[in-house]
Amino acid sequence: MDKQPSLPELSDYPVIITLPILWGDQDAFGHVNNTMPIRWFESARIAYMDQGFPASMRTSEGIGPILAAIRCNYRRQLHYPDTVHIGARVSRIGRSSMTIEHKIFSEAQRAVAADGDSVIVVFDYIAQRPVRVPPELRQGIEKLEGKTFNS
Amino acid sequence: MDKQPSLPELSDYPVIITLPILWGDQDAFGHVNNTMPIRWFESARIAYMDQGFPASMRTSEGIGPILAAIRCNYRRQLHYPDTVHIGARVSRIGRSSMTIEHKIFSEAQRAVAADGDSVIVVFDYIAQRPVRVPPELRQGIEKLEGKTFNS
Amino acid sequence: MDKQPSLPELSDYPVIITLPILWGDQDAFGHVNNTMPIRWFESARIAYMDQGFPASMRTSEGIGPILAAIRCNYRRQLHYPDTVHIGARVSRIGRSSMTIEHKIFSEAQRAVAADGDSVIVVFDYIAQRPVRVPPELRQGIEKLEGKTFNS
Amino acid sequence: MDKQPSLPELSDYPVIITLPILWGDQDAFGHVNNTMPIRWFESARIAYMDQGFPASMRTSEGIGPILAAIRCNYRRQLHYPDTVHIGARVSRIGRSSMTIEHKIFSEAQRAVAADGDSVIVVFDYIAQRPVRVPPELRQGIEKLEGKTFNS
Repeated sequence: MDKQPSLPELSDYPVIITLPILWGDQDAFGHVNNTMPIRWFESARIAYMDQGFPASMRTSEGIGPILAAIRCNYRRQLHYPDTVHIGARVSRIGRSSMTIEHKIFSEAQRAVAADGDSVIVVFDYIAQRPVRVPPELRQGIEKLEGKTFNS
Repeated sequence: MDKQPSLPELSDYPVIITLPILWGDQDAFGHVNNTMPIRWFESARIAYMDQGFPASMRTSEGIGPILAAIRCNYRRQLHYPDTVHIGARVSRIGRSSMTIEHKIFSEAQRAVAADGDSVIVVFDYIAQRPVRVPPELRQGIEKLEGKTFNS
Repeated sequence: MDKQPSLPELSDYPVIITLPILWGDQDAFGHVNNTMPIRWFESARIAYMDQGFPASMRTSEGIGPILAAIRCNYRRQLHYPDTVHIGARVSRIGRSSMTIEHKIFSEAQRAVAADGDSVIVVFDYIAQRPVRVPPELRQGIEKLEGKTFNS
Repeated sequence: MDKQPSLPELSDYPVIITLPILWGDQDAFGHVNNTMPIRWFESARIAYMDQGFPASMRTSEGIGPILAAIRCNYRRQLHYPDTVHIGARVSRIGRSSMTIEHKIFSEAQRAVAADGDSVIVVFDYIAQRPVRVPPELRQGIEKLEGKTFNS
């Protein structure tokens, strides 16, 4: 799961993870099942949080992130064996939510196989309601992205 | 996976499947993992195809459906034990694609836990390109939905 | 996930759960993937614990069960659509462990599709070591099984 | 999924694959779910077949392998993040079946996390019955293992 800075398609993504496709990721249609890019998006989000989020915010106790929505465009059929690189970057920080963009690059096809985005809400798991994006979270993301966000 | 016509939240969905939540559907956050509604959407799409699609179109050989995009809004955290009802309905038929809407209802919470939609493309798996929605597919869907679609 | 007491193949199992096979449970060989019976065993173990274990022992905090070993015999290829009934029964209670037997019955094939067993150790998650099977756990199991166990 | 010949615990395994643990491989107990080693065993079996089996035998059409039984001993709780190395070796070739042994090594714990074995039957998918292990399969395995097997 090392960074792969040499992929031009993912050059704007501060966090990139690399995963092998498993034979068992395929379904009865003979290609990778549609749930797998969603699982890979999750892995990239977690890696992003590990790097850009304060440690206190990476759990589901107290104040933490919760997934509100996801979108995925399936652009190419994937097969075993292959290796995919998944980029994650924050494209928007709002009052209590943010958008993380994902892009999946197939080594075997040398092409983008899927892309999409996740909407993350900063959630108070005790009060069970959204809260404002904390300043230290915004700062951590802006440092990782190398830019500032309007909100 | 019987029809449950008595759920008012799903009354406009011609296909409804019913699935138990498994303990193993939950992740380290202690609630159902975000990939599970995507899996349930898939199960509802397959059930829809079983009822509304010509038998010749349910495979990935020759002319068949391919998933182009998916969206999911996660509205409530789900937990084991629970039973979910997943509705599927076609909301749009285009030239070579259609949109299937999904809604997931939690029995334990008596509320909609997630909703979303899938874009399905009618695909020629041999030529590897989209083709026009065949008339018999449109007719099968219109019969199941009890209405006609502009395209 | 109701009890199905009318299946003669599972008549000796005090806990039986019923699950639909999902299309997505199948892999690129076109039949149900070998990880799925393991997931169904887990679901049956959890249902067994819900009925026979003291509430205080159903977590991974303090004293709780941990899976030490599993075996599965795959006797028939399973396909979607189908419904499986999974039985669980305790066959042995030892000093700090017990064996749970599993049997999977396919409705479509009217036959046993897989069987196997799990070895569960009673584990002190804080001290990170096995402990003796508590008397209230043994009593709960003996009540559910309707018999006593030597140890 | 490169070979890692420098792991002494896996030095007797001719096929070794390397996989990252994903956050989503964990369950509500907060450690890697018991189905994951089974999935990793599968991935190691497939890699073994890719290297030692004749190309004509790697499918479920005609003569091919089918999984008859699996065993897994769970020796340590695994957590994200970690990387596991999974070894596969044939320990027995019978008349129509063989045994593949598996061992999973955790990088983070520098220890064996699980081991087990799979029984594979050579199956005629058209006649739906086991057949004798073909000579070219035995030869491919003996070449990969660097030894001969009695049967």
